[in-house]
Formats: sequence, C-alpha cells, structure tokens
Amino acid sequence: MPDQMQRIALASRPFGVPKPENFSFESMAIPTPGDGEVLVRVHYMSLDPYMRGRMDDAKSYAAPVPIGGTMEAGGVGEVIASNSPAFRPGDIAFGMFGWASHGCLPASELRKLDPAHGPITAALGVLGMPGFTGWYGLTELGRPKAGETLVVAAATGPVGSMVGQVARQAGLRTVGIAGGAEKCALAVDMFGFDACVDHRAFETASELRKAIAAECPKGIDIYFENVGGKVFEAVLPLMNTFGRIPVCGMISGYNLTEAPSGPDRLPMLWRSVLIKHLSINGFIISNHFDRYPEFLATIGPKVASGDIAVLEDIAEGLENAPAAFIRLLTGGNRGKQIVKLI
Amino acid sequence: MPDQMQRIALASRPFGVPKPENFSFESMAIPTPGDGEVLVRVHYMSLDPYMRGRMDDAKSYAAPVPIGGTMEAGGVGEVIASNSPAFRPGDIAFGMFGWASHGCLPASELRKLDPAHGPITAALGVLGMPGFTGWYGLTELGRPKAGETLVVAAATGPVGSMVGQVARQAGLRTVGIAGGAEKCALAVDMFGFDACVDHRAFETASELRKAIAAECPKGIDIYFENVGGKVFEAVLPLMNTFGRIPVCGMISGYNLTEAPSGPDRLPMLWRSVLIKHLSINGFIISNHFDRYPEFLATIGPKVASGDIAVLEDIAEGLENAPAAFIRLLTGGNRGKQIVKLI
Repeated sequence: MPDQMQRIALASRPFGVPKPENFSFESMAIPTPGDGEVLVRVHYMSLDPYMRGRMDDAKSYAAPVPIGGTMEAGGVGEVIASNSPAFRPGDIAFGMFGWASHGCLPASELRKLDPAHGPITAALGVLGMPGFTGWYGLTELGRPKAGETLVVAAATGPVGSMVGQVARQAGLRTVGIAGGAEKCALAVDMFGFDACVDHRAFETASELRKAIAAECPKGIDIYFENVGGKVFEAVLPLMNTFGRIPVCGMISGYNLTEAPSGPDRLPMLWRSVLIKHLSINGFIISNHFDRYPEFLATIGPKVASGDIAVLEDIAEGLENAPAAFIRLLTGGNRGKQIVKLI
Repeated sequence: MPDQMQRIALASRPFGVPKPENFSFESMAIPTPGDGEVLVRVHYMSLDPYMRGRMDDAKSYAAPVPIGGTMEAGGVGEVIASNSPAFRPGDIAFGMFGWASHGCLPASELRKLDPAHGPITAALGVLGMPGFTGWYGLTELGRPKAGETLVVAAATGPVGSMVGQVARQAGLRTVGIAGGAEKCALAVDMFGFDACVDHRAFETASELRKAIAAECPKGIDIYFENVGGKVFEAVLPLMNTFGRIPVCGMISGYNLTEAPSGPDRLPMLWRSVLIKHLSINGFIISNHFDRYPEFLATIGPKVASGDIAVLEDIAEGLENAPAAFIRLLTGGNRGKQIVKLI
C-alpha cells in the first residue's frame, strides 16, 4: 500500500537499558497535510542519547514520550506535498519527524537545507544539535584559552569530536576519553586529539584518573561533561583552580535505575545538574576581596541598625581554642565562634 | 615573665576529627617589631571551619600549616608597639595573627577598626570573612530574585545567617537547615528564616529531602552550599530549573578520610568544586537556539573545508532503529548515529 507510512512507537517504559520489546514497529496511513503544513518523506533520522530520557516517565527538561506515542527524533528528508508557500515538493528539510518514515509538520517547524552546502546528514550531527551543543558549551561555558588543557569523553561522538576540534583550533591541549582502542585511535587520527585514554582499560575511577593525569601534565582546565559516572569521578580531582565544567549530558547515568543510598547515587544526583540547568560555582572568598569595601558599605550600616542580626559564641582563653574548634566542627557552637584571649 | 607570649601550634596532623593532642600550647618570647611592623595584643581570635583544611597536608587552595607552625586565624586586638606611622599604641586592628596571644605583622597587613562603629568582634564574623562570604556568594553567584526560594544550611552560623537575612530582605522565601531544635528556633526567631529544618531529625538524605520539600512548595532556586554531604544530597533533586548553587564550604566533608570507592566518595569529590573554584554549568541546548545562526556561520565553512572532521555511523532501515539506539547507549557506535530510511 503506497499510502502507508511506518513508525516506531514506545511500547513500554524500559527499566535500565532499553530492550527491543520496549519499541513497536507500526504501519499507518500517511497523513494529509492541513493548511500551512508540509509532508516530508524522511531520508535520515537522528539517534541521540537524550532519547533515553524521553522513554522514562520522570520529571526532566522535556515531556516524556507517552506509551503508544512515536519516539522523538530529528530527521532530514524530501518534501513530497506542501500546503505552504515556503516549501515545494523536492525541497530538502530538517524537522522533528520522530522515528518515522514520513512526517507532517507546520512549515514554521521545518528548516530548509541546501544540499549544495554538503551532505544533508550534517544537519543531524556536526551542523545540528550535537555539534551546536559542543560548540556552545565549549565556547560559552568552557571559555577556552590557548595553552590550557581540555578533556572530553565520548571523544569520537558528534559532541565530543566538535569540542575537541574547536578546542584544538583554539590552541588547547586536547585529551579525549573513549571506549576501546579503535575509538581512541580514531580520536587522535581523525579528530586531532593530542591523546586519548581508553576508559575500558581501567577498572576503577582511580586507575583511570592516573592514566588521564599522565596525559594532562598541567592539570585540566576544562572538562566537557557528557558522560558522568566513572569518568567524572576520575577527572574531578584533576581539575585546575578556576576550572570549568560545562555539563550537557551524562550518558553513563541514563540507564541507571533509582538507587538513592548505594554508591550509584552519585550519577543519579549529578544528573540533576544537567536536567535542571544548574549553575554551581565554587568560590574562595580570598579571590574576591576587591568587593570587600562594597560589602562593608552595604552591610555595615545594617548591622549597626540591627537590620542584620548577629550571633556570637565566645570561648574564653587561648588554651581552650582546640576544644572550641573541635566543637565547631561537630556543630556544638551557636553562631560565629570566637575565642576571647584577654 | 611579662615578655612571654602564648600560641597554639599544630603538633600533628589529624586523621578524621581533630583531637586535643594534635595541638600544642606553647610559650615563647614576644617578638620585637621590625621596621614597618606592628605588635598587637590579640583580644579575640576567630575559629572557622576552613582551618580544618589547613591541618591536612593535601593540595588545597591555601598552603597547609606546617607541623610545629602556629595555627592560622584572624584576630582583633590592641596595638602595643608600632614601627609604622600608620598605627599607634591603643589602636584596634584586625590581622591574621594566628592562634596566639600576640602578633607582629607589617602594617600593610593590618586593618584599623573604629570601636565606635560597633563591637570589634564583628570584624571576625558578620563584618568579616564569614559575613562577606555569605554576602558575596549570595549576591554575585546566587543572583537572588524576589519570590524565589533559598535554602542554606548551618543557618545560625555566620555565613548562613548572613545569607538568610540578605535573601529575606531581597524578598525571597528563606528556609534554613540546622542541627537540633534549639538552632532551628534561633534561625526563625533571631534571623527571620521562614522555616528551619533540623537535619539531625532525619536519618537519611531522602527523609531529609521530604522535610525540606515540605517547606519549599515552589522548589529551590538557590542552595547556598556550605556543608555538603547529606544535606547536599537531599537538596539537589529539589532544585528548580536554572537554579544556582554557590559553594563556599562543605564542613561535612572536612573530617572525612580518603575513601575513593565507598559511598563517602561523594563529599570527597564534591569538595573539589570548592577548593578548585570550579564553575559547573548544566545546560540544555534548546534554551540557547538564539545562538544557532552564529554557530552555523562559524562552523559551517569549516565543515565544508574539512577543517572540522565528521564521523557518521549510518544504520539502514527504520526497523533497525531500536537496535542501533541500544548500541548507541552502550557505546557500540562510531560517531554520530543516524538511521537511513530510504
């Protein structure tokens, strides 16, 4: 039947790694485009790790795919019917058509591609969402500076390979992390990484840490986080002061099931940083004393007027300082701990 | 002997919570101020959690106290001798005198206090380093907005009480966390917190999370991190999208001994965020599509010229999409995973 289309729907929610039975392959009538809509025959669809999140019924940054709904995906294809003046049959377009052979979308949700500009698959990868993610996260949040060292995992993936190449071209030492010797060779030979560490060759985070440290003699200034888990744990202690960690994904945690009290709770927690778009900034106040006069001018009068309350816990005598300090560390004090000497 | 001073030195490095034998109380000759130096009789010295870090011989943001060295501390006292025109005997000054009855420092390292402006102990707390830490971290990194919800632990401490009061005065709902009913009552009655949760009343992070959630009906926009550990774990999943977490300390981890593979590795790792002054930013690229044209204009020509390499892994047929997706999640693909449909 030439007017049938195929799609893959979410049959059931996975527990851990998805299984084939979580998906259902279905045929259905090709829709007829309504006013302003465009019908596209999909040539290529994208598969990306974020789709795993859409399969869960958990609160995240996007709504889950409903049971029975078409799996979400971007795709590129050829316009075969159009009720919009913006598209004609034969045009090539990008859109969120889902896991489906055909898609029918308002023209405003499609982006026209010029095949003369290169392979149309680029719109799904290097010039699409993954490449953009790598470029944006690196340049905007990673703030790369020549001479620094960058580490990125999934180094041969579309995000990691963009991050590594842009960083190298900005004058950074780039160290990739990938799974297996073949991917590591690809990272160096094809994407120009200065080195690539095979995370599968190391059982524990601390072993992996030693291998990464050996390739980062000046420490790590930017860790572009897209995997989480063991790699994150290996890298974090190697970060240099004022290091930056843009977090765009953590594929290692996507298949974890809730484990709030076991050792696996670290990636589950860390995932919040991503899905909540959190901004976490460690700071050492001694680096910011240029703002101290402003603080004094702002808060000093409020302390004097009583608008800022003050609670002090005053121990007596230098000889009692160690006991007061130990008490402070275990929460025994009330307010600012001070020792009165005379 | 009137020309003797007392100090407390670091006798040995602690393992876990410090013990009295880690400190030694000593008498020594009062130093004579050299050219440009000022001798101060210390009246009050400060005790702060950061001092625990100085007792370890681990890489941190400041050098450790050497064995036999005077424990580090800020203090306020009276000038008793001066070889600088900037200070006269009788002046009150703040300086890093250490755990000591007397301190002799260059005038440039002292700050003169005016006792008419209030109690001189304020220079160690509310108007000193702790208060400044709370104010800076909240205003600069927390970016508080009226109507938002703030959570801070150690709510009756000098940092937490500053954070809570400044946030409340900026129109935020403020929820403190403190250890014990007495501190919780203080947080509400003295510092004006809207609510305060007693973390000691809950055994696990998930129980504590429920209690905090009940006080934060609109979620948490700012978590001012100064304790880490169980509180961090309880709060993180309650954060709202675009939440901010300034991290100035994590007292819960200061006494931990290295435990790289057990469940206690979370606070050990998290401590890196603090001591390395890290900036961690979760981001969802769909919030930044305004930058997509800039990306295309920058990277598109490099893809065309081959300056950015592209690796694609193309599976054939929609029916093979689930298998390709499962392979992607377990690292079996090479480069950007795409499914070719026709």
